[in-house]
Amino acid sequence: MSGLDAIAGIGADRRRGGYSRHVFDDAERHLREWFVEQAESRGLEVETDANTNLWAWWGKPGEDAVVTGSHLDSVPGGGAFDGPLGVVCALEAVDLLRERGFQPSRPLAVVVFAEEEGGRFGVPCLGSRLMTGTIDADRARRLRDTDGISLAEAMGSFGADPARIGRDEGALRRIGHFVELHVEQGKGLVDLNRPVAVADSILGHGRWRFRFRGQGNHAGATLIDDRKDPMLPAAELVVAARRAAAATADGRATVGRLVPNPGGTNVIASAVDLYLDARAPRGARAMVEDLAEQAMELASQEGCSVEVVEESFGDTVHFDAALRDRLCEVLDDVPSLPTGAGHDAGVLAAEKPTAMLFVRNPTGISHAPEEHATVEDCEEGSHALARVLTDLAG
Amino acid sequence: MSGLDAIAGIGADRRRGGYSRHVFDDAERHLREWFVEQAESRGLEVETDANTNLWAWWGKPGEDAVVTGSHLDSVPGGGAFDGPLGVVCALEAVDLLRERGFQPSRPLAVVVFAEEEGGRFGVPCLGSRLMTGTIDADRARRLRDTDGISLAEAMGSFGADPARIGRDEGALRRIGHFVELHVEQGKGLVDLNRPVAVADSILGHGRWRFRFRGQGNHAGATLIDDRKDPMLPAAELVVAARRAAAATADGRATVGRLVPNPGGTNVIASAVDLYLDARAPRGARAMVEDLAEQAMELASQEGCSVEVVEESFGDTVHFDAALRDRLCEVLDDVPSLPTGAGHDAGVLAAEKPTAMLFVRNPTGISHAPEEHATVEDCEEGSHALARVLTDLAG
Repeated sequence: MSGLDAIAGIGADRRRGGYSRHVFDDAERHLREWFVEQAESRGLEVETDANTNLWAWWGKPGEDAVVTGSHLDSVPGGGAFDGPLGVVCALEAVDLLRERGFQPSRPLAVVVFAEEEGGRFGVPCLGSRLMTGTIDADRARRLRDTDGISLAEAMGSFGADPARIGRDEGALRRIGHFVELHVEQGKGLVDLNRPVAVADSILGHGRWRFRFRGQGNHAGATLIDDRKDPMLPAAELVVAARRAAAATADGRATVGRLVPNPGGTNVIASAVDLYLDARAPRGARAMVEDLAEQAMELASQEGCSVEVVEESFGDTVHFDAALRDRLCEVLDDVPSLPTGAGHDAGVLAAEKPTAMLFVRNPTGISHAPEEHATVEDCEEGSHALARVLTDLAG
Repeated sequence: MSGLDAIAGIGADRRRGGYSRHVFDDAERHLREWFVEQAESRGLEVETDANTNLWAWWGKPGEDAVVTGSHLDSVPGGGAFDGPLGVVCALEAVDLLRERGFQPSRPLAVVVFAEEEGGRFGVPCLGSRLMTGTIDADRARRLRDTDGISLAEAMGSFGADPARIGRDEGALRRIGHFVELHVEQGKGLVDLNRPVAVADSILGHGRWRFRFRGQGNHAGATLIDDRKDPMLPAAELVVAARRAAAATADGRATVGRLVPNPGGTNVIASAVDLYLDARAPRGARAMVEDLAEQAMELASQEGCSVEVVEESFGDTVHFDAALRDRLCEVLDDVPSLPTGAGHDAGVLAAEKPTAMLFVRNPTGISHAPEEHATVEDCEEGSHALARVLTDLAG
């Protein structure tokens, strides 16, 4: 895909491998510029909304539009397709429709949502959550990155006004349908030997921060019996979370980020921040409540304390069944598949008829450099999206 | 202590609390400048040796000198006394001797050893290890900090020649006796209700890096049974290390630094680096060999691998008994105490008659902002050191 090739050099992470593209960092600004150029070269009118999401309009911006797109940010050390594929295929679908002389009967827009991964400020789908008011604007302004910079400060440096963030009725009124294309984050299509599917549901998903506090001290001079080492209950919670997920139907629990403070080899940590990502069709919150109780018991056994903060939560999403069935039919009976991954489409589904297309990922791996999609399958994706847009805006 | 007050603003770590002063960073350079000024204002001649240790000479630099001093670097988020107290008391002891009109019969030097904590390049007592050849110079040049900068590169930026590092016969010949004063890193003196002690021994101590490798993947889309999550065996090893230390006579094992890669909340890590600090009077290596076997088993159960690298090791040090007894006598029968903390004095003890003085720490805490010593006890330390220097250089 020429679009993916064009951005292949932006935000490559030499230390971690893959890509690190976080909201308002150099790489993400560079990707925004690339998107604006691509849109304007097609004669699309580009707007940045109050929540720093980008919109490229075919035809006059207006209500009841057919909107497609995805995001350009990544997890730290992420793959090349998660996000950008949906944006590139959206632009290619516009090209395909124009080549065929298609004239949309409704406004059509390509959207790029900001901070979908929550890689910088911790809350996933931040752009769509803000737009729908699913996150409180005051709380969002106070979110901080690992350098201590708040979202409000980062927006200021970017040239956006943090006072304006929050539910955006104007933007929402314009959305008639939203369709997001995304690389599949699993092997469903590989197993079915098909290039494209329609999404059925998104697993309920939350993020919690466990802050264990103990007593920082010398790693050599402090007797084992005198320790209050927060690394111990944190480590035990990693194991407990795995056990809890395995005992929950279709449950997932992951600790991919764990930060001891101060983080010296010869220093007993004074605190450990453990970030828990937990998901389940139902009961993710109950699972984490149980883990929080275990954490308190584990911390107390070590003379430590623990504080648990819910950073985000979203229930399981079942996409609009009528729209899903319509897409399956338009695409000649492609399969429909559930996903364990979160998406802006999941946030919008609470407000608007929303659907997703998945493109086959031969490795089944995502959020890692091994994530992949063949050029042929990506083109299948663009063509499928073009057919869906033709159907919805025809 | 006016010396400690003068440097109280240098390298304060707002995020972690306490001080972060690492070799060749801005704070450490600033401390070196402060030391040079202090020494030169006393008419001491300052040299930087080939291994970037600083020497301030009272009298003509020469062989068989009485050397005192410590270090100025810190662990991340460390206390104000660990290191600087020994340097400040050394300068104050020089002042006291001069006030009394003392004329040393042997050269006398105040030394500042580089990178004692190993806070930047991972190997503790790097300056004294290089000077004595206890670490291979080629290996040392290749050590890297967390930003990927090698020691050789960092020395180059500092203006030192990395080709010159290694065993320094000239510097060693000059050392007749070495006496290091240090804040106590425990409650021995509090329990004895005494301000000053002489060191008896240093616990055997090593550092190991365990690199667990798995398969990075999506935290939501990857089924529990399909995971190869290196955080699991890493967490289990934290617990195993605690168990092993508790089962080893006077053993210690600490994981204060643990780094998942890429480190995203919604990302199963592809690798986890776990840094193990292990100590024991004897058998620390055997304890870690056993833990390495457990790590392999734990990793294998999760479909992961593990690689274990010994970053540093030093056997238990018993200080020169005759010198220890001489100091105890000179100081009117102060007690002698063992310590679990490592020191440059422990490295030099293999080559030269070496001793240490400890100053009472009312909190017993070290490598943390709560580390403390009263002004009165610090002055007791300076006076004790002055008496020792008078005895040795009289």
